[in-house]
Amino acid sequence: MIARTPEPPYYAVIFTSTRTEGDHGYAAMSDRMIELAEKQPGFLGVEHAREDLGITVSYWKDLESINNWKHHAEHSIARQKGRQEWYKDYKVRISRVERDYEFKKS
Amino acid sequence: MIARTPEPPYYAVIFTSTRTEGDHGYAAMSDRMIELAEKQPGFLGVEHAREDLGITVSYWKDLESINNWKHHAEHSIARQKGRQEWYKDYKVRISRVERDYEFKKS
Repeated sequence: MIARTPEPPYYAVIFTSTRTEGDHGYAAMSDRMIELAEKQPGFLGVEHAREDLGITVSYWKDLESINNWKHHAEHSIARQKGRQEWYKDYKVRISRVERDYEFKKS
Repeated sequence: MIARTPEPPYYAVIFTSTRTEGDHGYAAMSDRMIELAEKQPGFLGVEHAREDLGITVSYWKDLESINNWKHHAEHSIARQKGRQEWYKDYKVRISRVERDYEFKKS
């Protein structure tokens, strides 16, 4: 569940959104986009949770990988549909992970 | 709901976690920590969602603000209790937001 990312530095795309009412094909497309993202060069992992607010953090090797994914044809169609139908609003933040640490209960 | 952060650069602390069973005072402490974080110098905003996985992203002006918050006395006690009781595992990623953009349905 928690993404197993390599040693920093790497990049995190923090995608925060609020949804419109109803599904309108969102769940299927969301699953498909994760399946597709996982196949992209430079993809390192993804984490997602939604309550009122949805947060998806995807991790990438570098900015080039992020840019390639942004302009992937099928993803571009999904992004357009997102603006037309699925999202009330969203914010995308591109960030460079400089340090990380973790805890696991023994 | 989506944090209103200033123009980049700023910092994002991505805190991803899985919980143990039961509340054990977690919800009250979580609310208290957000209330307290909001009062810290350099705090810019916070976003949270939990399903199986919990994701909390807090935004900060600089690394010094993040470090001060990490070592805040009351937060340190909460962090210790988190490791003892509330979390099965967690990962903290400190990242520098370099670029952001947003969408709002008109």
